[in-house]
Amino acid sequence: MYATVMHGPGDVRYERVEDPKILKPTDAIIKLSATCICGSDLWPYRGLQPQNGPSHMGHEYCGVVVEVGSEVRTIKPGQFVVGSFCLSDNTCPHCQFGFQSSCRSREFMSGAQAPYARVALADGTLVATNEMPDADMIPHMLAVSDVLGTGWYGADAAQVLKGGTVVVVGDGAVGLMGILAASQMGAGRIIAMSSHKDRQKLALEFGATDIVAARGEDGIGEIMELTNGVGAESVLECVGMEQSMQQAIGVCRPGGTIGYVGVPHGVTFEGRDMFFAQKRMLGGPAPVRRFLPDLMDRVLQGKIQPGKVFDLVLPIEQVAEGYKAMDERRAIKTMLQVAE
Amino acid sequence: MYATVMHGPGDVRYERVEDPKILKPTDAIIKLSATCICGSDLWPYRGLQPQNGPSHMGHEYCGVVVEVGSEVRTIKPGQFVVGSFCLSDNTCPHCQFGFQSSCRSREFMSGAQAPYARVALADGTLVATNEMPDADMIPHMLAVSDVLGTGWYGADAAQVLKGGTVVVVGDGAVGLMGILAASQMGAGRIIAMSSHKDRQKLALEFGATDIVAARGEDGIGEIMELTNGVGAESVLECVGMEQSMQQAIGVCRPGGTIGYVGVPHGVTFEGRDMFFAQKRMLGGPAPVRRFLPDLMDRVLQGKIQPGKVFDLVLPIEQVAEGYKAMDERRAIKTMLQVAE
Repeated sequence: MYATVMHGPGDVRYERVEDPKILKPTDAIIKLSATCICGSDLWPYRGLQPQNGPSHMGHEYCGVVVEVGSEVRTIKPGQFVVGSFCLSDNTCPHCQFGFQSSCRSREFMSGAQAPYARVALADGTLVATNEMPDADMIPHMLAVSDVLGTGWYGADAAQVLKGGTVVVVGDGAVGLMGILAASQMGAGRIIAMSSHKDRQKLALEFGATDIVAARGEDGIGEIMELTNGVGAESVLECVGMEQSMQQAIGVCRPGGTIGYVGVPHGVTFEGRDMFFAQKRMLGGPAPVRRFLPDLMDRVLQGKIQPGKVFDLVLPIEQVAEGYKAMDERRAIKTMLQVAE
Repeated sequence: MYATVMHGPGDVRYERVEDPKILKPTDAIIKLSATCICGSDLWPYRGLQPQNGPSHMGHEYCGVVVEVGSEVRTIKPGQFVVGSFCLSDNTCPHCQFGFQSSCRSREFMSGAQAPYARVALADGTLVATNEMPDADMIPHMLAVSDVLGTGWYGADAAQVLKGGTVVVVGDGAVGLMGILAASQMGAGRIIAMSSHKDRQKLALEFGATDIVAARGEDGIGEIMELTNGVGAESVLECVGMEQSMQQAIGVCRPGGTIGYVGVPHGVTFEGRDMFFAQKRMLGGPAPVRRFLPDLMDRVLQGKIQPGKVFDLVLPIEQVAEGYKAMDERRAIKTMLQVAE
């Protein structure tokens, strides 16, 4: 088949690769219903994360099971499934504790920007629907796999409270999903830090109540003013850069909580500063598996439409353009269509 | 009066100073029933924290109110009171949120290693008992002021759960109080990292179920073995050094929580490591005021005896020896008696 391979910074090709196959008896092969490009794919694309040779890209996926290994018990060919970008057995103590992204058998998904993909630990990773969803559900189901799941975890880690005040730092796809999550969790006020008009619009649509376009100290100042000098009890850091982390810390009230889901790049903390700032922090790769059944239900019941985050849809053959558009910030997030 | 003044590293003198007096209408003056030396007093004593000239030492206190400023409303002369080392108005949004140690009007107590002391923000800071406690209650009431309150906050910040597994890093006075707190909160298993025989004994008395004497990687290994390779869901870091923090992170399970109450000295965190470790963290100076009424009740009802942490009792005139004994680890914590 053809699939997406990154050969180096800025060099993404849709090229011939070997078909995926069952390597372990706990694997499944799925036919993708759609796939997409993640903000984290841009780190290596921009040369900000070293690569060891060509990489099969893609870790967000939903689709139909076509084959399972001999030890797969619950997942069956013909089922429509969604899985997390973290593959997990869902039985180890860390999974049982709700942190499947720290599963003892954890693997990270790859190779999903393709028509077919292998999913390891199929029973633990994949969640099947009862029926085949309608085509218009596909973007929303796909979003659950990572971008919504990660935003949701950010809000969960930030301990968003019913009626509480939330700040979301970062107006990328994950930040926008964090807004949606906070809104679903009943936050009373959701302040989005966003300087892009089109993203502000989407932020409001997903539930933001206030927009702050300023960044850095100015942005912090505006939010402190909006919150009567108190700050927010829940802050989602959805970028992973030094400045965005400082913003998150700056707008969080003492005793408040920061959920950080942007993989930190060049971010360090001084222990004494963190101590006296007195802010609770939890980050990490999102344990999307914990949230999957609930989020899939919300999508199927029409409660949420996270797929709106895809503002560019391309046939998968044009994946290189999809990367380019996101790199140049012409697109928030690119969905890739796979031919029937 | 005579009081305790630190002139420089290793140089603590009990010498003539001016009597404390009401400086602001919200102040109170108390006659100390007893006072004590804090582990944090050892940082400057050991030259590990710069001092600007001679300092009036002491921030843990209980005693009888002798005078109040014109704006003090709830605290009255003759009352027995306990206060926190953080002076707070108890009305600002941060206080109302339970983080009085980040009060907008916060001051840090000083000058309490003396027969009399000035307490600013008296109404917000001090909690009075209904009756004059018996003399044998004084050590326990004194302990509430900081060392127990700090250990309690460590356990609270570490989200100790009924039946949960807790590791306490550090067998100093705060660590021992953290054990007591975790025990009171109903922890199922409390593993104390302690290498000193006398402290191990006290740890067990306060509720530790297991003792691990090894440190560093060996200590982490032993605790991982004790917890079937999982780690603890709640970890109290009660030291503030690089090694102790690494131990705390090393024994905390993914998704678990570290409450750190040792002021970090030379501790830094790499953002990416923290992210992938996926451990919740909250530190800071303890908002003891939040816990004071409850902890004073527990003491008065005889439920807890935190004053057992004082293993050396000296007349306040011998305060220099009290510092020396703690510095040389001959004493866990020194209580100073004030003449009637």
